[in-house]
Amino acid sequence: MSYQFKIVRRVDFAETDMAGLVHFSNFFRYMESVETAFFRSIGFSLVTRGVDAAVGWPRVHAECDYKKPLRFEDEVEIHLLVSRKKSKALSYAFVFRKLNASPPAIVARGALTAVCVTHRNGKMKAVRIPKMISDKIQVAPAAVLKRLQREK
Amino acid sequence: MSYQFKIVRRVDFAETDMAGLVHFSNFFRYMESVETAFFRSIGFSLVTRGVDAAVGWPRVHAECDYKKPLRFEDEVEIHLLVSRKKSKALSYAFVFRKLNASPPAIVARGALTAVCVTHRNGKMKAVRIPKMISDKIQVAPAAVLKRLQREK
Amino acid sequence: MSYQFKIVRRVDFAETDMAGLVHFSNFFRYMESVETAFFRSIGFSLVTRGVDAAVGWPRVHAECDYKKPLRFEDEVEIHLLVSRKKSKALSYAFVFRKLNASPPAIVARGALTAVCVTHRNGKMKAVRIPKMISDKIQVAPAAVLKRLQREK
Amino acid sequence: MSYQFKIVRRVDFAETDMAGLVHFSNFFRYMESVETAFFRSIGFSLVTRGVDAAVGWPRVHAECDYKKPLRFEDEVEIHLLVSRKKSKALSYAFVFRKLNASPPAIVARGALTAVCVTHRNGKMKAVRIPKMISDKIQVAPAAVLKRLQREK
Repeated sequence: MSYQFKIVRRVDFAETDMAGLVHFSNFFRYMESVETAFFRSIGFSLVTRGVDAAVGWPRVHAECDYKKPLRFEDEVEIHLLVSRKKSKALSYAFVFRKLNASPPAIVARGALTAVCVTHRNGKMKAVRIPKMISDKIQVAPAAVLKRLQREK
Repeated sequence: MSYQFKIVRRVDFAETDMAGLVHFSNFFRYMESVETAFFRSIGFSLVTRGVDAAVGWPRVHAECDYKKPLRFEDEVEIHLLVSRKKSKALSYAFVFRKLNASPPAIVARGALTAVCVTHRNGKMKAVRIPKMISDKIQVAPAAVLKRLQREK
Repeated sequence: MSYQFKIVRRVDFAETDMAGLVHFSNFFRYMESVETAFFRSIGFSLVTRGVDAAVGWPRVHAECDYKKPLRFEDEVEIHLLVSRKKSKALSYAFVFRKLNASPPAIVARGALTAVCVTHRNGKMKAVRIPKMISDKIQVAPAAVLKRLQREK
Repeated sequence: MSYQFKIVRRVDFAETDMAGLVHFSNFFRYMESVETAFFRSIGFSLVTRGVDAAVGWPRVHAECDYKKPLRFEDEVEIHLLVSRKKSKALSYAFVFRKLNASPPAIVARGALTAVCVTHRNGKMKAVRIPKMISDKIQVAPAAVLKRLQREK
């Protein structure tokens, strides 16, 4: 059972905008990047063939609070925690820490909720999370989630 | 005084992902796109030279709720409403309507909060919204915002 | 029979990079954008259901020469010309003109070659361009292509 | 003196398109990503403060030939070689190898030419490559470049 994962990325030039910052939309791509790595860490893919059919994880909610600027070549750690687990959906909390700062500083916090779906005849349908996946994922302990919220 | 703006875009191929949907991060780019057009409609640019210095609008909060899929070549209307106006920040509410559906359907709702800043010596500093800009922007009437929230 | 198409776009903030220019990779997205519009203008989609199966157009070659900077809010006309037509492939030439300059200036030239494919069992296979599509597309006259190359 | 560099990336979900492939424009972002890492490997940044002023590297030419599909979660090695060095410009050749194939397969080849510029009063001007940078970069031996072209 797993409830968290971390990756480190270095900001690409193409991810910046003319203000010299990482474009705010890219934080959502970073979130998905660690989500993908989290799934891989428990032996699955975000596009998983389950028992019957492939399941996917379209998002129903996404949000991000930006605290400090993140710039070209900054090293950013993206920390995912499972914040909620329902029969057909998973929610994650994210913390973005700039590592090339002393001490490392939180630059943003985010959240995603993804629903488990199958595709049939071009239509998506929400389904229960396959047991083989669900069995490997647990919600982060409340104390861990709380500590994360207080971290600066 | 202005409190809303609408643009229509057609979904580009590059904006889709392997699930056949508009990648969820692109809804944030769409929001910015109408915000830019809104500013242009009142005679300014998102990167505006004010009286003293250029002001920019980095985001401090962004969120989106996804209701229905949006796909390649769909026509989407993005509707911006000013939801809050503070001395140094503006908040917007967004509604995404798929026009090539009968009747047009809301596919997503979003929100952004942007802070007015100047750049000095490579540092950003929050500043009061220049009067010449502030004078042209007002918060949408409560009734209009409420109607938008109830719309399906 | 059609051999050209033009669209006009205004540069989005998210398309710029920290150098203040449109990121060079976005010119390829602009090319695809007018290619999509060109297909739509002759009654098809880049993802077209043909007689037997859906055909797609993966790229086998892409290139771009950058002449002048393109920046936020610039108005850019992207002009597509069909430069070559083979049984399974189409080649296009592109000219990018910045309209908010006097006179309008060529900022870039590009080229794409796309192969017509079907997807079967997760594999792509090059196929002849469906007649219903091929019949509507012709190569631009040599004189037109030459004039474009000399234009400044 | 250095003439090559390699990085390995795993394909992100957001980099795919509805055809299930890495969108062709993203290969150009991958090229820039290894170029950035190459510069870092010799002690500089793509946005380098030189003796007098910051130099940047806008592209004047970019191209890519696509051989095989690259998909979500594929591991791709991007191999940069310096193919040409002029007083104000550098050219690179790129090979993209899919590592999770046996044997690893070339999926694409690319090329970039970047010009060294300074920014003054909002204008870019081509300048000689600063000696401190130029001294650390050499063109790849002809035999190495040739071997790369023959590789399958």
